[in-house]
Amino acid sequence: MSTLSGGDVFLKLETLQPTFSFKIRGALNAVAAIVEGHARQPARLVTASAGNHGQALSHAARIAGLPLTVYVPETAPRAKQETIRRLGAELIGCADYDEAESRAKQHAASGAATFISPYSHPDVIAGAGTVGLEILQQDPGVDAIVVPVGGGGLLSGIAVAVKGSGHRAEIVGVEVEASCPFRQGLDAGRIVHIEVGRTLADGLSGNLDPDTITFEIVRTLVDRMTLVTEHHLRDAIAGVFHNERLIAEAAGAAGVAAITGNTLPTKGRRIAVVLSGANIDSDVLASLI
Amino acid sequence: MSTLSGGDVFLKLETLQPTFSFKIRGALNAVAAIVEGHARQPARLVTASAGNHGQALSHAARIAGLPLTVYVPETAPRAKQETIRRLGAELIGCADYDEAESRAKQHAASGAATFISPYSHPDVIAGAGTVGLEILQQDPGVDAIVVPVGGGGLLSGIAVAVKGSGHRAEIVGVEVEASCPFRQGLDAGRIVHIEVGRTLADGLSGNLDPDTITFEIVRTLVDRMTLVTEHHLRDAIAGVFHNERLIAEAAGAAGVAAITGNTLPTKGRRIAVVLSGANIDSDVLASLI
Repeated sequence: MSTLSGGDVFLKLETLQPTFSFKIRGALNAVAAIVEGHARQPARLVTASAGNHGQALSHAARIAGLPLTVYVPETAPRAKQETIRRLGAELIGCADYDEAESRAKQHAASGAATFISPYSHPDVIAGAGTVGLEILQQDPGVDAIVVPVGGGGLLSGIAVAVKGSGHRAEIVGVEVEASCPFRQGLDAGRIVHIEVGRTLADGLSGNLDPDTITFEIVRTLVDRMTLVTEHHLRDAIAGVFHNERLIAEAAGAAGVAAITGNTLPTKGRRIAVVLSGANIDSDVLASLI
Repeated sequence: MSTLSGGDVFLKLETLQPTFSFKIRGALNAVAAIVEGHARQPARLVTASAGNHGQALSHAARIAGLPLTVYVPETAPRAKQETIRRLGAELIGCADYDEAESRAKQHAASGAATFISPYSHPDVIAGAGTVGLEILQQDPGVDAIVVPVGGGGLLSGIAVAVKGSGHRAEIVGVEVEASCPFRQGLDAGRIVHIEVGRTLADGLSGNLDPDTITFEIVRTLVDRMTLVTEHHLRDAIAGVFHNERLIAEAAGAAGVAAITGNTLPTKGRRIAVVLSGANIDSDVLASLI
């Protein structure tokens, strides 16, 4: 990527985390806060997830001994759904992410459980922000940090952490063309309902929660947003395999796709790209490499 | 693997190194020693390699600005051969590893270049031994270290480093059934010529250099040797992909195969398994996952 882009490009590997995505950071932070706040009365948890947050929260809830229900799109990768089941959470299939989020919030509204949004939750965002703090520690001279964007939790956390520390690094969000609620919302000046197209990046697919706290954080703290195509995503997954011997899912490779798809200024800059997740079904990976 | 084996199993990831195997350690160490020793008269280098040592030495030679010729089996993975060429070394194809080693040594005997054996070389072995030192630092309570064995450079380096430090960890070498010169040599009490069968583990295939210094090191310092089958290797590559989201070549996964193939005592033990390389052709990986 450095050769291709004329910059110095580094990958921040969240693909080697427990449950193989950055989501474990926010999930553990949110569950720890709940355990501290409910010392006498154990909480029940509910969430919606395209898959990675569900896996991470299942892992965290299992450690804490808390029951968890996860609403997921039935189209989520088998690997993600199987892990959630194996970790002991209740899995409820939905038509798509939007339905999953809506049903999970209804479930919580009845008072039966605490909703842990995969992105619109202060503890989840703060956990994700540790990615930004680690990048600053590992490469204080970084000029830009490139981050895949679904609901914007990772981007918000990194933006808050980096800008809050006073560092000058540019914060860049990457959406997929087929599902870009931030692009469309920022253009409109408010969260708007979008038509979600088909994308290999299952983890980035869906509308924003109309109440999400990430929209305002992104609007005020993020320096640049860009879009990548499905073609860019496929090339990025293959490139990460062939050139780095790493596994990335499409959502996880969106930042790489922005670099190799030439959608960002890179020449002479030090750029940290978050490789955010590795949960790709083996047949999909096999077809791309 | 911990669940399967009843032990605490940790992977030492050499698959994320530059050129994607542990070989970079020995190659850099050997080249650094040559550069220090030839301040006025630049050396020419020659080696034989199943592929990974050739890539690593090409990388090291390029950094040092030294010309390098690499003799490789024509059956070596395309990915390995292409990288050697791309890094600027001269590549000479041979029928198999034994022919490559023999021709590289002849090349050096003419005085035209210095032969850097992939395993029978003190600086290469010392470099590989840093894997053992790091394992002891990272997990001082380790009970056993499991190491893939081709020419025995990695195993020798780790054994010297660990036993030399006075640590009690058991050192275990893993050969493949199709090519096990140490198993047959240790049984015979001396290096013997073996028939090399077909194996997915291209990196472990071939006879020992009759003069290799690794045989005596292994005989005196290694606690246990075991064998894995081709079936074990295939399962190990798939298991590493599905359960760890990591890429391993067959030689690199031999230690994992020894654990999951149940060829070693594991119950209640802390075991470090060296995942030694990731240079597998994409079509081979795709067929296994």
